[in-house]
Amino acid sequence: MNPYRLVQRKRDGDELTPDEIAAFFRGYAGGDVADYQMAAFLMAVFFRGLSPAELSALVDVMLHSGAVIDLADLPGVKIDKHSTGGVGDKVSLVLAPLVASLGVIVPMMSGRGLGHSGGTVDKLESIPGFRTDLDARAYRAQLERIGCALIAQMAEVAPLDRRLYALRDVTATVEAIPLIASSIMSKKLAEGIDALVLDVKEGNGAFLPEPERADALARTMIEIGAHYGKRVVALVTAMDRPLGFSIGNALEVEEAVLALRGEGPADLRAVTLALAAEMLVLGGVATDAEDGRRRAAGALDDGRALAKMRAIVEAQGGNPALLDDPALLPQAPVRRVIEAERGGVVAGIDVRAVGRAAVELGAGRRRLDDRIDPAVGMHLTVKPGDRVEAGEPIATVFASSEDAAALAAGAVQRAIAVEVGAMSPLPLVSRRITAAGIERLAR
Amino acid sequence: MNPYRLVQRKRDGDELTPDEIAAFFRGYAGGDVADYQMAAFLMAVFFRGLSPAELSALVDVMLHSGAVIDLADLPGVKIDKHSTGGVGDKVSLVLAPLVASLGVIVPMMSGRGLGHSGGTVDKLESIPGFRTDLDARAYRAQLERIGCALIAQMAEVAPLDRRLYALRDVTATVEAIPLIASSIMSKKLAEGIDALVLDVKEGNGAFLPEPERADALARTMIEIGAHYGKRVVALVTAMDRPLGFSIGNALEVEEAVLALRGEGPADLRAVTLALAAEMLVLGGVATDAEDGRRRAAGALDDGRALAKMRAIVEAQGGNPALLDDPALLPQAPVRRVIEAERGGVVAGIDVRAVGRAAVELGAGRRRLDDRIDPAVGMHLTVKPGDRVEAGEPIATVFASSEDAAALAAGAVQRAIAVEVGAMSPLPLVSRRITAAGIERLAR
Repeated sequence: MNPYRLVQRKRDGDELTPDEIAAFFRGYAGGDVADYQMAAFLMAVFFRGLSPAELSALVDVMLHSGAVIDLADLPGVKIDKHSTGGVGDKVSLVLAPLVASLGVIVPMMSGRGLGHSGGTVDKLESIPGFRTDLDARAYRAQLERIGCALIAQMAEVAPLDRRLYALRDVTATVEAIPLIASSIMSKKLAEGIDALVLDVKEGNGAFLPEPERADALARTMIEIGAHYGKRVVALVTAMDRPLGFSIGNALEVEEAVLALRGEGPADLRAVTLALAAEMLVLGGVATDAEDGRRRAAGALDDGRALAKMRAIVEAQGGNPALLDDPALLPQAPVRRVIEAERGGVVAGIDVRAVGRAAVELGAGRRRLDDRIDPAVGMHLTVKPGDRVEAGEPIATVFASSEDAAALAAGAVQRAIAVEVGAMSPLPLVSRRITAAGIERLAR
Repeated sequence: MNPYRLVQRKRDGDELTPDEIAAFFRGYAGGDVADYQMAAFLMAVFFRGLSPAELSALVDVMLHSGAVIDLADLPGVKIDKHSTGGVGDKVSLVLAPLVASLGVIVPMMSGRGLGHSGGTVDKLESIPGFRTDLDARAYRAQLERIGCALIAQMAEVAPLDRRLYALRDVTATVEAIPLIASSIMSKKLAEGIDALVLDVKEGNGAFLPEPERADALARTMIEIGAHYGKRVVALVTAMDRPLGFSIGNALEVEEAVLALRGEGPADLRAVTLALAAEMLVLGGVATDAEDGRRRAAGALDDGRALAKMRAIVEAQGGNPALLDDPALLPQAPVRRVIEAERGGVVAGIDVRAVGRAAVELGAGRRRLDDRIDPAVGMHLTVKPGDRVEAGEPIATVFASSEDAAALAAGAVQRAIAVEVGAMSPLPLVSRRITAAGIERLAR
């Protein structure tokens, strides 16, 4: 294995053999390929892509760089959901207990906040006492008993992906579709799933804002899944606005609890039900998406989903009383209401700017070792297309100090463009992508 | 300065400001930009290129990363020649004393062998006693006294280029035109030249074999020169065959001495005279290229060029007697004649394979710390287009052992394709490139 020649050939657009891909990435794991050689290779991949065979070989190396959990002997269908990440995206907190309450096993390993977007693990950890660091044995036992576990990526799962991600994160090679797809899929395949539903975001707050790139990412992940005999279905959903109203860890848990009671924001409920319907069909619980949506709506409205969440919170050491009394969640000392400076239509929301403002408040990390403040964040109560009057409240900032609140208020004010005239926001769920192709949805 | 953002913007095709380029490369020199970040940046440059302003900024940082020699107070015009590298290219050994014998000052810093191509410094060092490690003071003194110095790149010249080159060499980012151009020009501008003549190779033995890329490289170097007020003229010459007959360090010195006596191979003489003519015109010694060629031919034929070489060899500690008796050069113990296996026309020569065979014999380095055997190499006595009979000698290998000779003989035999039918070799000197554009030459 000659690292130089492999970088050179990838640079020149040659297809490498699966053995060459395996040797290069194993060489990196073993120290025979240097960081700078991998960085050059990854940048070449950004420009040249990976063939399906190269991609499979890469996923295989990453998957087998660590523990692969086998849940085959657990009765029931195991299905996870993965989101490509957004602002205010608390879907997992509602979806996982909801689907589990209807008999599908949901083995969910999640990540932490990344850049401008939040992470499910950070949100869960705002629940006092909640533990996300279950080991493989406890994870399997909880799946057997409750049908759902909400945990952090185990250290022993896909360690090579973690090293590669850290390198990509400092060399501007994060946004390459084959690298994103292989990173996600190697971790998901290690969880022991039978099938996977993807929530692929599009719009200005998504990591890949362009619809074409969102679709390409979905199709790449579906291809990888097919190679491993796993059914993968993707829904493309809107991230030209935050999902729901709340942004920030405890605030999002509170909103998720509302949704689990059937009282959450309409967009959060709609996206959750659409994803739940896909999981229920894949799990054999529903005959089709419409049947799945109906069943899922029932479980939100009759308390079954909330009861499942209660069981999960109890099992993972959290205080279940907060499901009845959200005031038990961490509370920010400073609240500041933001009013529209003029009347008009919300023509657009700079979702990344909103996400960055939340990070600045302390809801996310600027550096890897930053500590998160679970209480801070914001409510954004307007959506693109809404009419607002001058002076009407459009957001509330929850901060640890007046100074932080003032900074965030300015950023949020700037991020919400109120203009005269109409605009057309993205459809909430625009496309359904499977191995068979892309289906445009009317909702 | 945020290294990540700069890599990202270069990746996405944005133009960086000169200050940003300067900050990034100075950051690399100072340790604030990591090797892996630079590797990703250089690979992005391979795909995205550099704008003229970015390129000037990069050359400026590299040029001023070390000593810049000022020869302005030395009377006379200072002109160097640079070749993009090839096999059997001993032009510098003839050209520098030739042009200096006609009154142009030739301050020539050269490199060592690289990959399949040889280096002038390695060739010079096959002359017993010859020193190439002159310091700036000795360099200047010799230029003043003799009008020519043939030395190795000084350590204090463009140290950043040296570090970058080492990184490019292990990350497959050597072949990017703006990186090649800035590396060459930053070193040449540091020598104290007034003007520069480039010998840009095209054909299968060149670093950039395609004519379009050879032209682009020439034009990029001319642009950089113009930015510094230096006239640069390039000739594109053939490297679809070795230049002259000999390949290998002492063998090439011997052939250069023949050429200095007016007795060398026709192609070596033709390329040398074409380059000399350009230097003489730039130096104000000749009125036009034809006049320059005539004057240069005269200096080869009447011994002035050889006398200048004698002065240089004496000044730099070498034994001048070898100019009269080439047997004083190191001699290889084993010689093996290679015969054509069948009759026909030499349809093509795989020049890289020939160069690699010479490296394997010991004429070049596989690893940085390999020692060169000055005596080994080969004579390749056929050129593309030549008719040969079966059994006719086509090459001689000079080796340190029978085993090495046998290996090289096989490689050379395979590298020379003898076929039935005609073929059209590249013109020896095909194009002349200046700031005004590309001029096709008929010879």
